[in-house]
Amino acid sequence: MNIIIDAMGGDNAPKEILQGAADAVKEYGVEITAVGRKEEIEACAKENGIDLSGFTIVNAQETIEMCDEPTAAIRGKKDSSMVVGLRMLAEGRGDAFVSAGSTGALLAGATLIVKRMKGVKRPAIGTVVPGGNQPYLLMDAGANVECRPEMLDAFAVMGSVYMEKVMGRRAPKVGLVNNGAEETKGTPAYVQAHQMMKKNDAINFVGNVEPKDIPKGDIDVVVCDGFTGNVILKLTEGLANTLIGEIKNVFLANLKTKLAFLMVKPGMRAFKKKMDADEHGGALMMGVTKPVIKAHGSSRAKAFKNAIRQAKLCVESGTVESMREKLAAVAETKQAGE
Amino acid sequence: MNIIIDAMGGDNAPKEILQGAADAVKEYGVEITAVGRKEEIEACAKENGIDLSGFTIVNAQETIEMCDEPTAAIRGKKDSSMVVGLRMLAEGRGDAFVSAGSTGALLAGATLIVKRMKGVKRPAIGTVVPGGNQPYLLMDAGANVECRPEMLDAFAVMGSVYMEKVMGRRAPKVGLVNNGAEETKGTPAYVQAHQMMKKNDAINFVGNVEPKDIPKGDIDVVVCDGFTGNVILKLTEGLANTLIGEIKNVFLANLKTKLAFLMVKPGMRAFKKKMDADEHGGALMMGVTKPVIKAHGSSRAKAFKNAIRQAKLCVESGTVESMREKLAAVAETKQAGE
Repeated sequence: MNIIIDAMGGDNAPKEILQGAADAVKEYGVEITAVGRKEEIEACAKENGIDLSGFTIVNAQETIEMCDEPTAAIRGKKDSSMVVGLRMLAEGRGDAFVSAGSTGALLAGATLIVKRMKGVKRPAIGTVVPGGNQPYLLMDAGANVECRPEMLDAFAVMGSVYMEKVMGRRAPKVGLVNNGAEETKGTPAYVQAHQMMKKNDAINFVGNVEPKDIPKGDIDVVVCDGFTGNVILKLTEGLANTLIGEIKNVFLANLKTKLAFLMVKPGMRAFKKKMDADEHGGALMMGVTKPVIKAHGSSRAKAFKNAIRQAKLCVESGTVESMREKLAAVAETKQAGE
Repeated sequence: MNIIIDAMGGDNAPKEILQGAADAVKEYGVEITAVGRKEEIEACAKENGIDLSGFTIVNAQETIEMCDEPTAAIRGKKDSSMVVGLRMLAEGRGDAFVSAGSTGALLAGATLIVKRMKGVKRPAIGTVVPGGNQPYLLMDAGANVECRPEMLDAFAVMGSVYMEKVMGRRAPKVGLVNNGAEETKGTPAYVQAHQMMKKNDAINFVGNVEPKDIPKGDIDVVVCDGFTGNVILKLTEGLANTLIGEIKNVFLANLKTKLAFLMVKPGMRAFKKKMDADEHGGALMMGVTKPVIKAHGSSRAKAFKNAIRQAKLCVESGTVESMREKLAAVAETKQAGE
């Protein structure tokens, strides 16, 4: 299996990206096609003692920056690591593409170069978020600030396939984020989406999920528009940081509390690992015809390695093909019912 | 000062409601007009040794239930504790009204009986939420699932008055919840609201606030639509519970960790108190002509007492009158500018 990576994308590129990919070669036995400035990649690997065996390096001179306007960057920077990598994926010269670069540009690039599945207007971002009992899939986590009901319904279908194929959940539970359990809650789009999802036999819809219940992780696929999804994802991150910071302060208070910390250190470490989003890899661009994965912009080697693992799982399990088939089947059922 | 309370509203009525109000009489020197089934109130006070000095009891035979359709309940249950209490407030037979009953019914009742301020289409819910550095005001916390830009702008004005008058913040910072710092982020309504707030001299607008930064509490007034506000409020609650539960498990692991807990107990208690929403009282129905406060449905005595304290602060500081004046001044400036 050949995973194409954007060696120049992200806050810690190329060093942490290359290190993560090198670790992935060893742990998962994948081959890596690293796209970026060849000289810089080789110099960085040499300087940091990163072993590039299993790597093919493809030169691309440009880099898409976080501040670039997404569509203009994809159209204008033809020789950027992201555009070159996505084109290789589209041409079948690799099985998946992983980047820690600009989310907007990756979305635009996946749409323009790799293309969308039939019936998908714009790809959505599916992100695995740590939860109390187990991690859950949040989608859309930020791609589409406004969503029509049929988009939310399609998210449910794609998200269910992902949780089944990649995360091994059987008949994953789907919930629609809403400000109450009743069917009539929410904006008109949410009320309509609820009715569509209720009638959709391709998913295991359990109804609305109230925000207070989301962090438990009992709902496998948490469906919402991208504005709300961004709030859920980023508020979870921010609040976890705030609370962990507060608890740290409790332990730093005096000698006695510092001693107490030593006694709970293993447990706290396990807890932090459980709540660490980096453990779950990146976000899949859902609705694109091939696996395109966005690693967190601040990814270090571990997070990037896990994003590659996720790409491998997607490829092995035929996740993207299954999504395409399921969406087509749902569209057919709807047409037949009309 | 006379605070009218709904003695029958909430999960723990009337006992905890009466206890909280009795504590408020002692601590804050307010008078209480308790509305509800007179016999039941007196029997409950007697049974639980609650001292009703400072109380006037006004009989109302009906109770609005959580499952009642809000507007129908307000129109139909004329002799309910909520309707009778709101009517007394409208007629000037009390300075503020506090209820732990149905939010929807209280919103409908405040609108129909106490009436809205000029220029306010529907009241919004302003809730003080615990934050890392300091608590912040979230509004709309759930009343209006869809909001036009001018509504968001009005929330900012009313929220600023509240934070200044009741919480003593000088030139409170106002942020618009959004999925990015740039002015162009969000739905069309948010893009427009950003421009309106930027031009609004009555507020100290600091731009968009990203969800990850909300829990720090550095932004005094966090403005959003009610759907998003409900997500922020309830996710914060749910996530705090999940994380605190996880940390509890760390401490319960074995004898050593249990001992460690004893060593950090005072600090953990202070932390829990800081993160406890009950400390901050209830939610003000913003845009209503007199102070109407919603205490949490699950309020126990402490939370209800704090909601009464909040009502007292609103009355003393002339918060509602200031909101009315500020909104009128903003409307005038807008008209002059057109």
